[in-house]
Amino acid sequence: MAPSYKLIYFNARGKAEHIRFIFAYAGVDYEDERIPQEKWPELKRKMPFGMLPVLEIDGKPVGQSNAIARHLAKQYGLAGKDDWESLQCDMLVDTLTDLKQGSLVYQQREEEANGYEEQEKKIILMKEKIPFYLNKFEKVVSENGGFSVGSA
Amino acid sequence: MAPSYKLIYFNARGKAEHIRFIFAYAGVDYEDERIPQEKWPELKRKMPFGMLPVLEIDGKPVGQSNAIARHLAKQYGLAGKDDWESLQCDMLVDTLTDLKQGSLVYQQREEEANGYEEQEKKIILMKEKIPFYLNKFEKVVSENGGFSVGSA
Repeated sequence: MAPSYKLIYFNARGKAEHIRFIFAYAGVDYEDERIPQEKWPELKRKMPFGMLPVLEIDGKPVGQSNAIARHLAKQYGLAGKDDWESLQCDMLVDTLTDLKQGSLVYQQREEEANGYEEQEKKIILMKEKIPFYLNKFEKVVSENGGFSVGSA
Repeated sequence: MAPSYKLIYFNARGKAEHIRFIFAYAGVDYEDERIPQEKWPELKRKMPFGMLPVLEIDGKPVGQSNAIARHLAKQYGLAGKDDWESLQCDMLVDTLTDLKQGSLVYQQREEEANGYEEQEKKIILMKEKIPFYLNKFEKVVSENGGFSVGSA
């Protein structure tokens, strides 16, 4: 029997949208529970590691957005055709997380400090890091027959 | 034929030691290349995403420490006996990363700011976050028949 899924997250894309994408792609029904911020403090105590998203699989709660996404990708044929391809998927997911985290940490810090040093960091992020990663991702997309920004 | 492995990292445990542990546990030969810091700027340009560790599998470079570790764990029977167990492994690995990252971000910031607010954050980290996570991990270890600090 197909498992029942309940995805618990805030009313946001954030760390749950790629999970919703997989459900949509696979045409799988799930309950998309979106928690209002004011209910979070109470719910937080009940979550496996005090974090969201959580996916309940047949009532059993599981945390960590990428662990959840990888599991579902595996169930619905999106995690590579062999171990080598799965490894490439995992490498790209974690590299994307690195890029996002670099940008987020920067944004948080920018709000606190606006000196010359922070401006330097912004330039490095915008002119070096982001283009560096996006060029690499473009190359991977292109090598795998996908559409890249550069393709006609 | 068994694949050939070359692990490229600094002369440090850091983000490579869990990969070395898996090789040791599985009794698998690999080249453990440790890069001196002064050679890193030149090598960095040649790495897939400009980061270490990189594992060369039959000469093909792959990045991201946890992607590498997961792949090897899968090859040597350490990634769970079914998809559900693999999901638990992945969830725990990412939760451990959250904990480590929370601690590292804190340490970096502490060097820059030593005010009251930072002291408050240190207290929250030491008295709340770390014990919260370690208690959860202890529980998982104990539930799976491993030795926990609390066990005799």
